[in-house]
Amino acid sequence: MPRYRLLGPFDQVVTMTGMPLKGPLADEQLPVLKQGGVLLEDEKIHSVGKYADLLGTANKVKAQMVELERPTVCLPGWIDAHTHICFHGSRAKDYALRNAGASYQQIAREGGGIWDTVRHTRQASEHDLGEGILLRTQALLKNGITTVEVKSGYGLTLEEELKMLRAIKAADRQAAQDLVSTCLAAHILPKDYDGDHAAYLAEMAWELLPRAKSEALTNRVDAFVEEGAFSESIIAPYFQKARSMGFQLTVHADQFTTGGTAVAVDHHAVSADHLEASTAKEITLLSQSEVIAVALPGASIGLGCGFAPARKLLDAGCALAIASDWNPGSAPMGDLLVQASVLATFEKLTNAEVLAGISFRAAAALGLQDRGHLSPGALGDLNLYATDHFREISYHQGMLKPYQVWKRGEKVFSVDE
Amino acid sequence: MPRYRLLGPFDQVVTMTGMPLKGPLADEQLPVLKQGGVLLEDEKIHSVGKYADLLGTANKVKAQMVELERPTVCLPGWIDAHTHICFHGSRAKDYALRNAGASYQQIAREGGGIWDTVRHTRQASEHDLGEGILLRTQALLKNGITTVEVKSGYGLTLEEELKMLRAIKAADRQAAQDLVSTCLAAHILPKDYDGDHAAYLAEMAWELLPRAKSEALTNRVDAFVEEGAFSESIIAPYFQKARSMGFQLTVHADQFTTGGTAVAVDHHAVSADHLEASTAKEITLLSQSEVIAVALPGASIGLGCGFAPARKLLDAGCALAIASDWNPGSAPMGDLLVQASVLATFEKLTNAEVLAGISFRAAAALGLQDRGHLSPGALGDLNLYATDHFREISYHQGMLKPYQVWKRGEKVFSVDE
Repeated sequence: MPRYRLLGPFDQVVTMTGMPLKGPLADEQLPVLKQGGVLLEDEKIHSVGKYADLLGTANKVKAQMVELERPTVCLPGWIDAHTHICFHGSRAKDYALRNAGASYQQIAREGGGIWDTVRHTRQASEHDLGEGILLRTQALLKNGITTVEVKSGYGLTLEEELKMLRAIKAADRQAAQDLVSTCLAAHILPKDYDGDHAAYLAEMAWELLPRAKSEALTNRVDAFVEEGAFSESIIAPYFQKARSMGFQLTVHADQFTTGGTAVAVDHHAVSADHLEASTAKEITLLSQSEVIAVALPGASIGLGCGFAPARKLLDAGCALAIASDWNPGSAPMGDLLVQASVLATFEKLTNAEVLAGISFRAAAALGLQDRGHLSPGALGDLNLYATDHFREISYHQGMLKPYQVWKRGEKVFSVDE
Repeated sequence: MPRYRLLGPFDQVVTMTGMPLKGPLADEQLPVLKQGGVLLEDEKIHSVGKYADLLGTANKVKAQMVELERPTVCLPGWIDAHTHICFHGSRAKDYALRNAGASYQQIAREGGGIWDTVRHTRQASEHDLGEGILLRTQALLKNGITTVEVKSGYGLTLEEELKMLRAIKAADRQAAQDLVSTCLAAHILPKDYDGDHAAYLAEMAWELLPRAKSEALTNRVDAFVEEGAFSESIIAPYFQKARSMGFQLTVHADQFTTGGTAVAVDHHAVSADHLEASTAKEITLLSQSEVIAVALPGASIGLGCGFAPARKLLDAGCALAIASDWNPGSAPMGDLLVQASVLATFEKLTNAEVLAGISFRAAAALGLQDRGHLSPGALGDLNLYATDHFREISYHQGMLKPYQVWKRGEKVFSVDE
């Protein structure tokens, strides 16, 4: 017999339903139910509506009543659609060197850069990597993040990439959140391939991807398309092979130089992430495609460089998600709400655009329809904030935390406990 | 009989002593004691040194041993040298309008802007204002802020400014931190003076300042020197009078237009705060003066505009403090560590420069010598971080919080309790 619970009454339920996937959003477009409630049926949402209207159904199904005694705004659980939180080792030394004015070359000479993380990650056991992910997802829970994408990409050999993907899968079983795993073997060319990108990618395509598939480790493949990483032409056969195997594609695009967005569009990727260097040409390409644009303000804040042109992307009609890029090198903060709020002030994004960017638009960047909005049949992923108006969330720039977080119909975080 | 406590052993004690007040700082200049300890004598520091070396003295004075069982870096309590946390009412609506592209004029037409805060603050009782300050200082404690400057400036009448200053004084008695009060009656001209800035300032100089002095409410006077607020010439007699009465001066300078820095230098202010609009001329003026330059990255992050030229200020030989500017309008985040870290990546500040900016250089911006460094006779204001290296603090961009905070020799915050 299903278990029913009625949550409410809430000052506002912001359902994030019925809103366009693409283009600008005014706050007036937010669907806000006053004196609303949410009726949960096991791990899903049974219905959302006026609290008074839900009481009848709730009585009929003998729902447990979860009454909230303080001013509360209820929103969907947030989705962080781009992270690298499977890693080992600190890059604080790099960070200090970079802020002291050191170049990439100097940092590399000091033993820093991505290879430092690759070395530490390779040395770590699958178990240790899983523990690291769990520590980080635990911290994310306090910010109301109920779905977290996690990439491999610091292994860079068949076995080491498999180790990372298995660690992510194991952490997914234990974490309160859902983890969405992505294979980023195409992060950077390992040194022992002597500059032969094609040979490395062929090995990954023919050996890693089938193993990832047969072990059900991930259904997503990502690549860093960039000068110094993988070029547009080098990545093409890898992406074709991955797509033919049924993998969803996503691209690290236009972080420092352009090119990645065209790859994302050509190969029907679900998302193009970064976009700090995107010009009018890439913005037009994205706006005419089904590719979700994912801004990663954490990388701008971590490196101290410009933000993705979020305002222009929205005004051109793109779908804009916002993710943290949490990684030990360029985005060590790991606080999506702070980052999205800072992006909003610099790029002039409305509350509706920010909230959409970390809810249903972020879900779309992961190809998921069952979350990021509060509607019948969607997952019971909820954030309860102790305030009477949704606009207080962006206003406090990440400092206002949810006092309860619900995941798949269960209360998984509460400040009172 | 004094009470002694020996804290340690610490992986690192970063004493922040013996460092220059002005100019750039490399991380190598940070005075770091490995396996160090701190011996407290009542509310002050008795001695700092190698833990092994302190044991003898500690035994002799029968010190209580406070042994730390985890990797720990010990640093001075942080100082937020510029806040407006005495206020009532939310400005979330303004914030939403601004991010949606509204102009100042539009926001004012919607009943927003500073006058909204003035209206709410005037309506609040002294008691309510005090409670608001205490809620905010409580939140600051978790970030290791042990001294907080708090300004008036939303009252803008004799009685309302006195109410604010009294609320700050009352909160100072109850808060774990020391609050440093500042009179900012010269924030903006109240509407009922019909544009007569001189008449308003004369009233404040001859009526408010003597009352503030006789009630021992504050020894600091601030003014917002800016187009639309108070001009350089209008502020001169007010500052002369305040200075002749023994008030320490500080200036809101060069936020949108220049002029304030020259006022600060001419009137021997202790600090010039904001500086987002400062040019080479103002930087030179500051570098040749004893005025502390105070960057307020929270205002840049709140408004989405450029940062104060922190790198240039340091390279020119200025003393640079970093403060939050926490206020309900332009800087609602209120997290100094996040803000200082973001300033550091965009302006390329070393760890040493960031830590100095929120410790002894921030103390200097308040004219205080007894804090912001760990040396014999200084206040026992300590932050204990669960890490083995100081550089992890900036690296995590505000997410790494102290696990214990000590104020005047007492543990006032602990994550374990």
